Amino acid sequence: MRPISVPMRSHRKEIWLEAPSRRAFINITTQVQECVRESGINEGLALINSMHVTAAVFVDDDESGLYRHYEVWLERLAPVVHPNPDDDDTIGEDIIDAHMKRQLMGREVTVAVTGGRLDFGPWENIFYGEFDGGRKKRVLVKIIGE
Amino acid sequence: MRPISVPMRSHRKEIWLEAPSRRAFINITTQVQECVRESGINEGLALINSMHVTAAVFVDDDESGLYRHYEVWLERLAPVVHPNPDDDDTIGEDIIDAHMKRQLMGREVTVAVTGGRLDFGPWENIFYGEFDGGRKKRVLVKIIGE
Amino acid sequence: MRPISVPMRSHRKEIWLEAPSRRAFINITTQVQECVRESGINEGLALINSMHVTAAVFVDDDESGLYRHYEVWLERLAPVVHPNPDDDDTIGEDIIDAHMKRQLMGREVTVAVTGGRLDFGPWENIFYGEFDGGRKKRVLVKIIGE
Repeated sequence: MRPISVPMRSHRKEIWLEAPSRRAFINITTQVQECVRESGINEGLALINSMHVTAAVFVDDDESGLYRHYEVWLERLAPVVHPNPDDDDTIGEDIIDAHMKRQLMGREVTVAVTGGRLDFGPWENIFYGEFDGGRKKRVLVKIIGE
Repeated sequence: MRPISVPMRSHRKEIWLEAPSRRAFINITTQVQECVRESGINEGLALINSMHVTAAVFVDDDESGLYRHYEVWLERLAPVVHPNPDDDDTIGEDIIDAHMKRQLMGREVTVAVTGGRLDFGPWENIFYGEFDGGRKKRVLVKIIGE
Repeated sequence: MRPISVPMRSHRKEIWLEAPSRRAFINITTQVQECVRESGINEGLALINSMHVTAAVFVDDDESGLYRHYEVWLERLAPVVHPNPDDDDTIGEDIIDAHMKRQLMGREVTVAVTGGRLDFGPWENIFYGEFDGGRKKRVLVKIIGE
């Protein structure tokens, strides 16, 4: 396939989410696909990232059983830190585990855009992972291409 | 260095792999470099991602000793989950560990393309990490730039 | 917002760092923002990656208390491997933990560039994570856009 030369475009959109619980996994593939459609970009790269440091964006299968396992697993690898009353950290210890869980799952994914669509394998879905919910949060979608 | 203004190009290629064993680490740097050469793109970004949710793409040193340590380490952090006969999850429990291992190693890497080549430090190599092998799988390479 | 069509530009810069200690976390947001300014690129994507396989680049909050917790946590998940005198691995076992710690924190981040600036949520900062310090190392910044 011969590469095609055309001018570059960019498109930016925020997806707002509010998980009622402290932790949640939310499939945002449809919203991201809609951003790609809006952009009019056919060939390029889409960056999808959490704008918050206690939430993740990652790609995985849309199977509820998997996320029940992830919840237990993440708590095992990055358990809730119990506050130490003698510690005067400016960061609240009650969200340290949320930072760690987000590092394990990742801040962002970059997805190819091909033929005006997210270029995915058969089971790929984009998930938002919330580890400090109960308020409105944002995911940034930035698409560049032509 | 003054930025240069030229039209954008894109290039897409799938790399097919088949690991005979359940788990494997395969160096795909040469195939990705060949995709960059084919694309004719000199300056840009290359996205290299697994199209499967139980396989990883990551950057690390090409030293076999390291991968023996990774295998033990990943099994310690994300051990095989033994099926529970009372559980009717639609996802097979026998691949839950593969999802987790892939999250630890990562779905994708984005690599700068400079002067028509992957812009790497001295020990950087692109690896495919298979956690549910024994069949054909794909890695997507999408390059945009000029 | 209607996408804008303009020619593509690219910009490349290396940030040099030297952590005096074996491990360190260094906020490099200001240097990366300066690269974006130098590039003259208003809309695009910035890739920021470690050029070394025992160092990470990631996004997190700039709170020193958090990094004390990260240090303990990373040592728990990826402890220092004590050399086995019977093993003739070509890779030094004394840096295996550094590879693993870097995988947990990640090689790279991709950040949107909007209006000539890093497009960040309120607490997002770019950090360099050193796990095998004591010498000069490099972070690559590659920006493409218009």
